[in-house]
Amino acid sequence: MKLISPDFDNSSKTPLYIQLYNYLKGEIMAGGISSGEKLPSLRKLAKDLSVSVTTADLAYSQLTVEGYIYSVPQSGYYVSELGLDDSHESAQPKGIIGHGTFSIDPPAYRYDLSCFNFVKWKKCMARVLNEYPEALLYESDPQGEEALRCEISRYVYSSRGVIADPDQIVIGAGTQQLTSHLCRIMKRMSIGLVSTEDPGYLPVQNIFRDHGFSITKIPVGQDGIDINRLPTNLASAVYVSPSNQFPTGSVMPVGRRYQLLQWAKENQSYILEDDYDSELRYFGKPVPALQGLDKHSRVVYLGSFSSTLFPAIKISYMVLPEEMMHIWSDIKTDYTQTCSKTEQLTLALFMAEGSYSTNIKKLRKLYSQKLQVALNAFGKYAKGVVQPINTQSGINIILKVRTRKDPAELSASAGELGLNVIPTAGLTEQDTAALIFYYNQIPLEEMDGCIKNMINKWVE
Amino acid sequence: MKLISPDFDNSSKTPLYIQLYNYLKGEIMAGGISSGEKLPSLRKLAKDLSVSVTTADLAYSQLTVEGYIYSVPQSGYYVSELGLDDSHESAQPKGIIGHGTFSIDPPAYRYDLSCFNFVKWKKCMARVLNEYPEALLYESDPQGEEALRCEISRYVYSSRGVIADPDQIVIGAGTQQLTSHLCRIMKRMSIGLVSTEDPGYLPVQNIFRDHGFSITKIPVGQDGIDINRLPTNLASAVYVSPSNQFPTGSVMPVGRRYQLLQWAKENQSYILEDDYDSELRYFGKPVPALQGLDKHSRVVYLGSFSSTLFPAIKISYMVLPEEMMHIWSDIKTDYTQTCSKTEQLTLALFMAEGSYSTNIKKLRKLYSQKLQVALNAFGKYAKGVVQPINTQSGINIILKVRTRKDPAELSASAGELGLNVIPTAGLTEQDTAALIFYYNQIPLEEMDGCIKNMINKWVE
Repeated sequence: MKLISPDFDNSSKTPLYIQLYNYLKGEIMAGGISSGEKLPSLRKLAKDLSVSVTTADLAYSQLTVEGYIYSVPQSGYYVSELGLDDSHESAQPKGIIGHGTFSIDPPAYRYDLSCFNFVKWKKCMARVLNEYPEALLYESDPQGEEALRCEISRYVYSSRGVIADPDQIVIGAGTQQLTSHLCRIMKRMSIGLVSTEDPGYLPVQNIFRDHGFSITKIPVGQDGIDINRLPTNLASAVYVSPSNQFPTGSVMPVGRRYQLLQWAKENQSYILEDDYDSELRYFGKPVPALQGLDKHSRVVYLGSFSSTLFPAIKISYMVLPEEMMHIWSDIKTDYTQTCSKTEQLTLALFMAEGSYSTNIKKLRKLYSQKLQVALNAFGKYAKGVVQPINTQSGINIILKVRTRKDPAELSASAGELGLNVIPTAGLTEQDTAALIFYYNQIPLEEMDGCIKNMINKWVE
Repeated sequence: MKLISPDFDNSSKTPLYIQLYNYLKGEIMAGGISSGEKLPSLRKLAKDLSVSVTTADLAYSQLTVEGYIYSVPQSGYYVSELGLDDSHESAQPKGIIGHGTFSIDPPAYRYDLSCFNFVKWKKCMARVLNEYPEALLYESDPQGEEALRCEISRYVYSSRGVIADPDQIVIGAGTQQLTSHLCRIMKRMSIGLVSTEDPGYLPVQNIFRDHGFSITKIPVGQDGIDINRLPTNLASAVYVSPSNQFPTGSVMPVGRRYQLLQWAKENQSYILEDDYDSELRYFGKPVPALQGLDKHSRVVYLGSFSSTLFPAIKISYMVLPEEMMHIWSDIKTDYTQTCSKTEQLTLALFMAEGSYSTNIKKLRKLYSQKLQVALNAFGKYAKGVVQPINTQSGINIILKVRTRKDPAELSASAGELGLNVIPTAGLTEQDTAALIFYYNQIPLEEMDGCIKNMINKWVE
């Protein structure tokens, strides 16, 4: 064994016992002290190095906890067999790390801060932190905070005609998260097939696929999904967005809704109704949800706050029909809540004091003005090349562009203008690109010029 | 057709066209106007009811959008075939809803607000909302906010010896969420088997099961998982908590760590290292993470902020080795971020200004005092019935209780005292119940009395 002779730095802030621990670990790793060797006793080491026995004891204890040495009762301390191979001559990690100070890049696209009342929101959040900090010392309910579920229960009834007891409502961080829970529930019901709209919303399809479901794509027409092509004589589920089909914008008429409910009832199947932004309908009253028409507990209703609060909020909810609710009750403690408890409680307060409905009213007005200006601009500058569709509601417009350019190229050139325009699969045809144009974040006074410039770039 | 004769309420705030829409819908649903019947023209209806043509037009438009009626060009409006069955004589939903005003129940267990500096946290959150509101108008990166990943990169290196570039770090709302992503990555690597510690942390096992992985349970001894029983000649993964095994508290010695790394290298397998609360080690220096010893990119490192901030925070992270990182880059846009963007940015600020390390130092001191008082209390009152184990670190102690009572009964009677004591599977033996005692939230001055009362209840 090498002489144990650490160079203590008495002026250092590092305690002596850690200096000793570091020295001994280094020697062991470098082979200066070999495995199996007996170390000096605590008293001897303390005396040799002129340190206290406590210092020696603390160093040996730490080395023992980490397994570099071990103690044999009535005998002493020994160096462990570490099984180092040649590539481990140094335990020191190789550099990296350290990226400067805190900074957040501004969004890549144009934005309009008048879309959301952050002042009110901040006040609600401060109230939660000031008045209920103890609530944050415990995890959120896997089903979501009761205070929020009560508010949602009241809200979906009055705004969408959805009948939901707070116990039927499950909160999660986004539709994908809730879809994961639905997959778990449906597997326990021996449902293994999901029909989806084609074209449709892909992010949920990724979740069905990950959970091993078979997926059948059913074409969407002007009245929504083609009900006659849904599977029969088999319990399955269909994922639909009947009040503003994504991306076509079609609305399923009430007669078709009853037909779909009839299909579900006859085949012991379920309708997964994604009602993602139906509060934002600008012409006429919103179309009531399918769930409110259901008398046989065959509908799961899915809603989200991303479009009506702010996109980073990540709070979604679903309303489970009775049988699914019982299964969920059995399994829910297997899963932790993903949604921020602070934000759930903040939203509950924001809704309870009426700020949420005020905000929706404001958004309806603001977005319908923006939509009108956008449609006028497309009228003026489209030159028969760009055709806007799906223009009744929501936060985006689908554009059909007559072009031979790649949709990704169109998206990139719109991006250069700070416009968020995303290619959408399913609607693209020969010589026609389909893109989703998010108009809602473009400031009203910039709308006309932005659209003019975008179209000019596209026809270049 | 019944006479169209709505009772307009001119003093109502409800616009005339909605009153007309509601009336017509009610008549259609009740069968007063039958399917196939032709409705009066807009002009005629307007004249009959003494309303403007616009009012009539808006009512018909809404009914058309919702599918109650349809228009035939050059002919007029007709009532749709709705396919109502007998049970649908009323579209009016049956009651429910309305649960009073906003309220939050206090936690079911004792709590100690000195565990976290909510004032500092609130200031950071206010800064995010005041200075960067535009960041909240766009969704979070599926991988997590870069500002936070940079802070984590610096932090895990200095505190845990983990070598992680910000690009290797993935943020999610809890370990289950990250484990879901790991499952997706491993499936693409044709890994289908995960070994887990027995006893071990069940919530992640639920996720492996949901994603269809085979699970092999490997016994845990004093030095951690039994490496000799891990599968060989097969690419697999092992989920371990080497620095504070849950629930036994065993620490894997460094020699065993090298052995485990060797196993992973030889079998093209992966080590999923859950380092959930290793900052909270009260005796000696924290044991460095296994990831820092790995030279062959075989370790996924998992960390969480629940124990060191507050339990409701729900921010976790993982560090991916190179090959997994490439797969993640290919698939990450398929998934949305579940973690609150506001809280991610707040935490990044909290870390950047040094409040996070201050808080950890404070917690180490506070919790080690609490632990000492708790251990003294068990010494005084245990009467040979209760044996505390796993007492070096973390926020809980495992109690072995010599009893014939059911662990759930012990948990319930502790709960009556406001104590969070949860039965743990795997350590329970004949006449011995094993429970997890969360001591950290019990105020210091209440600790001794609480434990005395709890044990008295148990031995009654």
